[in-house]
Amino acid sequence: DPSHPRYKSLLARGKLEEAAERGMLAGSALIAHGRGEAFDYLLGEETSDSALKATKEAVNRLIAAKKPVISLNGNTTALAGLSLLKCAAIICFPMEINIFYRTPERMSELFVFIEEKRQEILSQPAPLHWKGELDEWKRAVEAVEVLGALPDAKIPGLQGPRAKCHKDGIFSCDAILVPLEDGDRCEALVKMGKNVLVVALHPKSRSAIMANVTIVDEVCRFAENLFKILLENKSLPPDSKWNNDNILRDALSVMARNML
Amino acid sequence: DPSHPRYKSLLARGKLEEAAERGMLAGSALIAHGRGEAFDYLLGEETSDSALKATKEAVNRLIAAKKPVISLNGNTTALAGLSLLKCAAIICFPMEINIFYRTPERMSELFVFIEEKRQEILSQPAPLHWKGELDEWKRAVEAVEVLGALPDAKIPGLQGPRAKCHKDGIFSCDAILVPLEDGDRCEALVKMGKNVLVVALHPKSRSAIMANVTIVDEVCRFAENLFKILLENKSLPPDSKWNNDNILRDALSVMARNML
Repeated sequence: DPSHPRYKSLLARGKLEEAAERGMLAGSALIAHGRGEAFDYLLGEETSDSALKATKEAVNRLIAAKKPVISLNGNTTALAGLSLLKCAAIICFPMEINIFYRTPERMSELFVFIEEKRQEILSQPAPLHWKGELDEWKRAVEAVEVLGALPDAKIPGLQGPRAKCHKDGIFSCDAILVPLEDGDRCEALVKMGKNVLVVALHPKSRSAIMANVTIVDEVCRFAENLFKILLENKSLPPDSKWNNDNILRDALSVMARNML
Repeated sequence: DPSHPRYKSLLARGKLEEAAERGMLAGSALIAHGRGEAFDYLLGEETSDSALKATKEAVNRLIAAKKPVISLNGNTTALAGLSLLKCAAIICFPMEINIFYRTPERMSELFVFIEEKRQEILSQPAPLHWKGELDEWKRAVEAVEVLGALPDAKIPGLQGPRAKCHKDGIFSCDAILVPLEDGDRCEALVKMGKNVLVVALHPKSRSAIMANVTIVDEVCRFAENLFKILLENKSLPPDSKWNNDNILRDALSVMARNML
């Protein structure tokens, strides 16, 4: 019932429980989602002004990059795979499925899921503010490359399967949008000199602290905002004086205020 | 590795993932645990003075009660079933397994788990500060009644299987320790006029607000504290001027402080 005050939160929970049943998620994925739910509750389950500002800065950096990529893990795929695929279609970015606990079964299930979402998008009209023809939209959606199946490179500084990536994707990108990234991987990507744009609900998590731009927001709301901003097509040059600490401090003060 | 700064938190996570694999938990249980992890992180993952004070008040009320009972749901059983069984042995209280999403499979798995824990306790020495003989300890552990399998009463005001309980247990008790209780059920128990003692990590949750005594603490730490206090055997009369709002306010201020 969409009139329920926590409708979106319950919808997200349902999506994740379904994804868990399909074998898309690692054992710790639902626990991680619960942690996020608590921090989102403290955010008031809405996008703060500073989170929207960070979303816009992330867009500017993605647009300005020579080789941007959108990284998808299990929870991001389940929660926002459809929206992010539409975003990728607008700006012709590749996506790369890149999970921390990599197994062939989970990878394969995530690819199947993304292809289902692609078909779902193709079966619907073009987005409301899409400026071209329906045909162009469909071609754009069909053209979105989804990497991750045949990794041929490694993220330096990481051990085991979690290091695997595509030479043409994450390995050589200059800007990467990594929603819900693990701290170790975020650190490794920053060390590679990439522009790392993280979506994270815990402002004191290692990923949130280490990213170049941190969007402290729930991933579905973030993806919807990203979609709207990309359709407006009004990007600016990246802010060379971007202060990410201010963004994190602001998120913490919103949460502390809601706590009392 | 016990020297890891988040050892206890990771241990708890492992216990729950194992319980989920055994079929002891509902789909939302891991998400609920994750929410708790976030609030516990904000507590600094330690028992606050006010949480310890609430734990002592809960003990005093349980000891003063004519018919106390300890209610166990899936997460509580998985995380603290062993410790709570030892507590029940010290004070000869019955336990009642009482889950929100009741299925025969989950109920049966929870009973098997508790019996495994009972055997584990019986295979070990008596607790360090136990004042009697080993034999007495073993008899006390064997004597702990675990209700829940054959419910013959209903909690008024609740619909469906979640209302089921034992006439001789939850239905007729005058004081109930309900760690991690759902808001609806907590409310229904309070309406029955019982002394409701809740362990909850979110100080603004409905259960936390409605309980007579709220222990804002992680359930494993709570159960260890409860065990120590019961072994000391120094209970006092319940505090007739108990102000539970102060306890909740204190927990919120600890969390807000740790946030900034």
